Amino acid sequence: MSTSNRPSGRVANQLRDVRFTRHFTKHAEGSVLVEFGETKVICTASIEDKVPGFLKGKGQGWLTAEYGMLPRSTHSRMDREAAKGKQSGRTQEIQRLIGRSLRAAFDLEAFGERTLHLDCDVIQADGGTRTASISGAMVAAYDAFAKMVAAGTITSIPVKQFVAAISVGVHDGQPVLDLDYLEDSNCDTDMNVVMEDSGKFIEVQGTAEGMAFDRSTLNSLLDLAQDGIAQIISEQKRVLGISA
Amino acid sequence: MSTSNRPSGRVANQLRDVRFTRHFTKHAEGSVLVEFGETKVICTASIEDKVPGFLKGKGQGWLTAEYGMLPRSTHSRMDREAAKGKQSGRTQEIQRLIGRSLRAAFDLEAFGERTLHLDCDVIQADGGTRTASISGAMVAAYDAFAKMVAAGTITSIPVKQFVAAISVGVHDGQPVLDLDYLEDSNCDTDMNVVMEDSGKFIEVQGTAEGMAFDRSTLNSLLDLAQDGIAQIISEQKRVLGISA
Amino acid sequence: MSTSNRPSGRVANQLRDVRFTRHFTKHAEGSVLVEFGETKVICTASIEDKVPGFLKGKGQGWLTAEYGMLPRSTHSRMDREAAKGKQSGRTQEIQRLIGRSLRAAFDLEAFGERTLHLDCDVIQADGGTRTASISGAMVAAYDAFAKMVAAGTITSIPVKQFVAAISVGVHDGQPVLDLDYLEDSNCDTDMNVVMEDSGKFIEVQGTAEGMAFDRSTLNSLLDLAQDGIAQIISEQKRVLGISA
Amino acid sequence: MSTSNRPSGRVANQLRDVRFTRHFTKHAEGSVLVEFGETKVICTASIEDKVPGFLKGKGQGWLTAEYGMLPRSTHSRMDREAAKGKQSGRTQEIQRLIGRSLRAAFDLEAFGERTLHLDCDVIQADGGTRTASISGAMVAAYDAFAKMVAAGTITSIPVKQFVAAISVGVHDGQPVLDLDYLEDSNCDTDMNVVMEDSGKFIEVQGTAEGMAFDRSTLNSLLDLAQDGIAQIISEQKRVLGISA
Amino acid sequence: MSTSNRPSGRVANQLRDVRFTRHFTKHAEGSVLVEFGETKVICTASIEDKVPGFLKGKGQGWLTAEYGMLPRSTHSRMDREAAKGKQSGRTQEIQRLIGRSLRAAFDLEAFGERTLHLDCDVIQADGGTRTASISGAMVAAYDAFAKMVAAGTITSIPVKQFVAAISVGVHDGQPVLDLDYLEDSNCDTDMNVVMEDSGKFIEVQGTAEGMAFDRSTLNSLLDLAQDGIAQIISEQKRVLGISA
Amino acid sequence: MSTSNRPSGRVANQLRDVRFTRHFTKHAEGSVLVEFGETKVICTASIEDKVPGFLKGKGQGWLTAEYGMLPRSTHSRMDREAAKGKQSGRTQEIQRLIGRSLRAAFDLEAFGERTLHLDCDVIQADGGTRTASISGAMVAAYDAFAKMVAAGTITSIPVKQFVAAISVGVHDGQPVLDLDYLEDSNCDTDMNVVMEDSGKFIEVQGTAEGMAFDRSTLNSLLDLAQDGIAQIISEQKRVLGISA
Repeated sequence: MSTSNRPSGRVANQLRDVRFTRHFTKHAEGSVLVEFGETKVICTASIEDKVPGFLKGKGQGWLTAEYGMLPRSTHSRMDREAAKGKQSGRTQEIQRLIGRSLRAAFDLEAFGERTLHLDCDVIQADGGTRTASISGAMVAAYDAFAKMVAAGTITSIPVKQFVAAISVGVHDGQPVLDLDYLEDSNCDTDMNVVMEDSGKFIEVQGTAEGMAFDRSTLNSLLDLAQDGIAQIISEQKRVLGISA
Repeated sequence: MSTSNRPSGRVANQLRDVRFTRHFTKHAEGSVLVEFGETKVICTASIEDKVPGFLKGKGQGWLTAEYGMLPRSTHSRMDREAAKGKQSGRTQEIQRLIGRSLRAAFDLEAFGERTLHLDCDVIQADGGTRTASISGAMVAAYDAFAKMVAAGTITSIPVKQFVAAISVGVHDGQPVLDLDYLEDSNCDTDMNVVMEDSGKFIEVQGTAEGMAFDRSTLNSLLDLAQDGIAQIISEQKRVLGISA
Repeated sequence: MSTSNRPSGRVANQLRDVRFTRHFTKHAEGSVLVEFGETKVICTASIEDKVPGFLKGKGQGWLTAEYGMLPRSTHSRMDREAAKGKQSGRTQEIQRLIGRSLRAAFDLEAFGERTLHLDCDVIQADGGTRTASISGAMVAAYDAFAKMVAAGTITSIPVKQFVAAISVGVHDGQPVLDLDYLEDSNCDTDMNVVMEDSGKFIEVQGTAEGMAFDRSTLNSLLDLAQDGIAQIISEQKRVLGISA
Repeated sequence: MSTSNRPSGRVANQLRDVRFTRHFTKHAEGSVLVEFGETKVICTASIEDKVPGFLKGKGQGWLTAEYGMLPRSTHSRMDREAAKGKQSGRTQEIQRLIGRSLRAAFDLEAFGERTLHLDCDVIQADGGTRTASISGAMVAAYDAFAKMVAAGTITSIPVKQFVAAISVGVHDGQPVLDLDYLEDSNCDTDMNVVMEDSGKFIEVQGTAEGMAFDRSTLNSLLDLAQDGIAQIISEQKRVLGISA
Repeated sequence: MSTSNRPSGRVANQLRDVRFTRHFTKHAEGSVLVEFGETKVICTASIEDKVPGFLKGKGQGWLTAEYGMLPRSTHSRMDREAAKGKQSGRTQEIQRLIGRSLRAAFDLEAFGERTLHLDCDVIQADGGTRTASISGAMVAAYDAFAKMVAAGTITSIPVKQFVAAISVGVHDGQPVLDLDYLEDSNCDTDMNVVMEDSGKFIEVQGTAEGMAFDRSTLNSLLDLAQDGIAQIISEQKRVLGISA
Repeated sequence: MSTSNRPSGRVANQLRDVRFTRHFTKHAEGSVLVEFGETKVICTASIEDKVPGFLKGKGQGWLTAEYGMLPRSTHSRMDREAAKGKQSGRTQEIQRLIGRSLRAAFDLEAFGERTLHLDCDVIQADGGTRTASISGAMVAAYDAFAKMVAAGTITSIPVKQFVAAISVGVHDGQPVLDLDYLEDSNCDTDMNVVMEDSGKFIEVQGTAEGMAFDRSTLNSLLDLAQDGIAQIISEQKRVLGISA
């Protein structure tokens, strides 16, 4: 994958700079600023000592996620969802995806009747906000559980697998990794992939925009995603001080 | 694929009975009752002579979809969304998927400044309501455009490709086609696939429930889906009197 | 009542074909498709094992109703109430009427702390949707209670009286029975009547549209309604296998 | 109708004191405090120089009504609808009735593209708030139109008929006129009647509460209502200085 | 303060006629019509035998306020908040202010686990509705507590201090007391002051409209307010029969 | 003001570290991270080329503000307003205050029919979020106007006065400047002051919490606020490169 027509000049299988800043804000049990290039998301993990009604008395925990964008995180200002009085379908779709992905990472039965709330708030958007959110929420959640271990509330971090996510797509006829906004607005296929560190898939969501895609394109995209996610998980572990 | 542990007794690559009843209700330009076994959805297509604000004056049309379930279409009664005052995240996710899928089927620039509204209302649910909705909406939309041709409003049906959808999943360790409710509630991976009659993909949405899935499982599932969708598109064309 | 100017060609005291199809969908305890000519409504009855807060601990049951129209059940497409985020005044008025009418049919103290939910969803509208809903809900509710008897949950069906409903109106100067949409849009007076099989009234709701009505017109309308409802109740009993 | 068991001591065909205080507040074009005994409602009529979208350019006017209750107009405090974020079904039902009734009183084609807004706000409730509202709104609307005549905006008051309303019911086995709260909470049948000064009906809304009612009871109730409404219309005209 | 340019002809430190009519409506435990000139507000105080969740089991009471305006209490008709489905920011700001002010007047720990609901509904607005509301609510609340004492529910009225409120502002360059609507729409600074009978402040809310104000103007305004509030508290006590 | 009992160890008239980081995010015309100690707010200024309806065609601009808190900007997690479907009264009160304050800073008639949207989003809260928001929004707005000047859209920055805000209060009996969360939760009086660089007031909002305050306390608080705001305005000008 030598040359590339990507607006960013990146080669096809090249991630943007991925950075996790832990302890970004001070109140949350876990708080991470995740950056995928110019995309910046604050991910916080908050522990609450109760579970939703449908789980009461079952002795297990719950994990849920919410997602938002600051009104001017985007190129032109979006209406504030709180002022409009409802979350868009896109917002709900994304926060459901984050929740499902992170529930795959942790053992819900191992932290008692507690809820872990993940809040992913985009402060600057440049494509890939949902995959950055999932990847950053993993680190924030890990930190929150580590704090519970340190406090003696639970005996070990209930992690089953590390999870991370990345987008891939077909840009200018070429499968590429980690679309930024410019690529995302001009791609034919857009796919978001969530994966475990085992290399297995949690979610695969591919959408043809403009032109349908065939099996071989799908395979190229999945190859790119698997490589990219492996790098992200490796960075997650590095900032958490976990040997791979 | 000889034997099977499917609750329904179906073999792994066997669809339920798929049936399209055209002209099911009398007011809509297109109206189809689609049945995937015991799953029954009324799909109507309505033509409106205007487009949303963002398309005004551009000389092209729009296509949009809404989805709903009758409160007692399900095993136990669900709250009515109109009474609760909002559509769930799941509902919005599904209606966005239906809309994207059907926009891939038709040429939006070929029917003037009009909107095609697709309404998919589930009257009986037994798994696969979103894939039945997409498959039925295709027939309803085709009928609505045919009516416009008959009325001389447009000169030909602006269809680009037929589209249909099916679910696949891993049940009891085995990849199977077209999950019914019983299978859906007990499967490890659940995937919805939307495809064109060319065999190319419009949407691939796979979710691990319980256990992550590997590339080879993913490939088996896509094989099943491609076969199933080809059969559904063939049935769509048959009821519309189109030779394949 | 020999000749008639009714668009339908019906004579003044003639009902449309009234048909009740039991067991129309499979999950609900009672499920009926009711047809008054081209008006078609799915009525389901669902049993829930609890009562609203204001009845808790009183040892009695409750019965409540909701009403909806599919967006394209009508001549031109209506906005979906779930998408708009609220039910119209008309919808609320109708579902309150259905609830009151059916509470008159059953003995609320005879089925324990349970709620019977009646859902009336119009799939095709041609006038008289509220009266068809009431008449169909009676059959669905009866079936649901019969199922409870069969299951040994209660010892007998807690029916006090059969109830049914019909519309009457003044069309082209003439009092007529069971208005269809064409008549309804052009009538001077519109009245909905709910009656017991004893011949007594549960509800009488007459509205002058265009021209006020006098006592003698009111009397003619009530005569028509009483005859019509008697026929509907007779049909309800026939399909339920009850000798009159 | 000599003796009576009415809690109020009134004889069966006796209205409560009915009083209209014109010019009750100073900003509205028409403003009336209407009292039916202890029931007190402020009715204002406001002229707006535009019509709803569906009437634009048709050269005619519109009349619409809204209804509300102060939270502590009732025996125990009700939640404020503005704080709950929605109007109850009962509120909507009542304001639709007021609107329909008053549209029957005035010639909508005779006051240009204007909207008359009627606001009926209950400050003290003791039964019969909707009938008091209709009766008071008639006077407020008349005053508002008179103001327009005085200003030379229109040449004559576009009144077709005077309208007023009253409730009747069966209390303790006896048909009675103008139910107060105590009677209303204990009656078997409750009927609201809206009538023109010609003696013809605009609305008849009878509801069995507890026990269904027969034709002869219905007739007695209508007799009572006709007498009562005639008295109220006579009082409306008196306060407006119109000779009967 | 001899001459004045006030539209009303009042001198700078002159209140409008302030009047409190107790027992204005019959159901509420306390009910007062308060008039500041042409501004008229119905203030009711309702006792409920429970407290909000955050106070349950703490053995103390709560006091809360709501505010509303009849749609035509104003010069031109405002939309009804209940119909719009939400309270404006202004409404919420005012009701929060009323609640805080009255909580300063009473000892919340001295009337058990009860909530005092204050409802302030403006029936005619001519400036100063929030200050009239606070001043009137004081009297209504006092009456409600007096009723509880009379009923033996509590042993003494839990009043700590009398509170009242007034607006002041700079009109035509001159600091003036108790702005009416005409003055309010044309003033440079608008300040609302809530004070105890001790002369101490509960709230001071000054806003520059058009032109910022300096310390010396602020001092003149506070002088005016202190005098005005003292007069209002004196009138509150007089109508309640309390010697100053 | 030598010694102090402030939890922070600050002396009574000591501000926290006040820092403005310009160009904090990349899309907005103005984007500032403002920090008052541990309180951190992102303030963005967005230019939109239209005005609200009430200003159309008047040739002038508008300025408006919105405020929000990330769910875990606070000690314990708050519900997300977008998910609840409405903004709290507190949120609305604050965003109205920010809007009024900034409208005092700029000449609305000097930048054409455009709207400046100010968004203040708290990412970490430690008391004083509204005063930090106002102070930061001033810098963001200035930057946005400077960008318009640079682009040649307007000829000069339409600033009339610099504005900034600070809180003051009585803590442990002592008037202190710039309350942090710990002080804010335990103070007797809480006052927010908005001032111009001329030293005149835009807003003074003082609230007694627990104990009413007298004139002399009020005066001490205003002295503190005037000093504090002067320092903040001086810092605003420094980061903007404006000589005082």
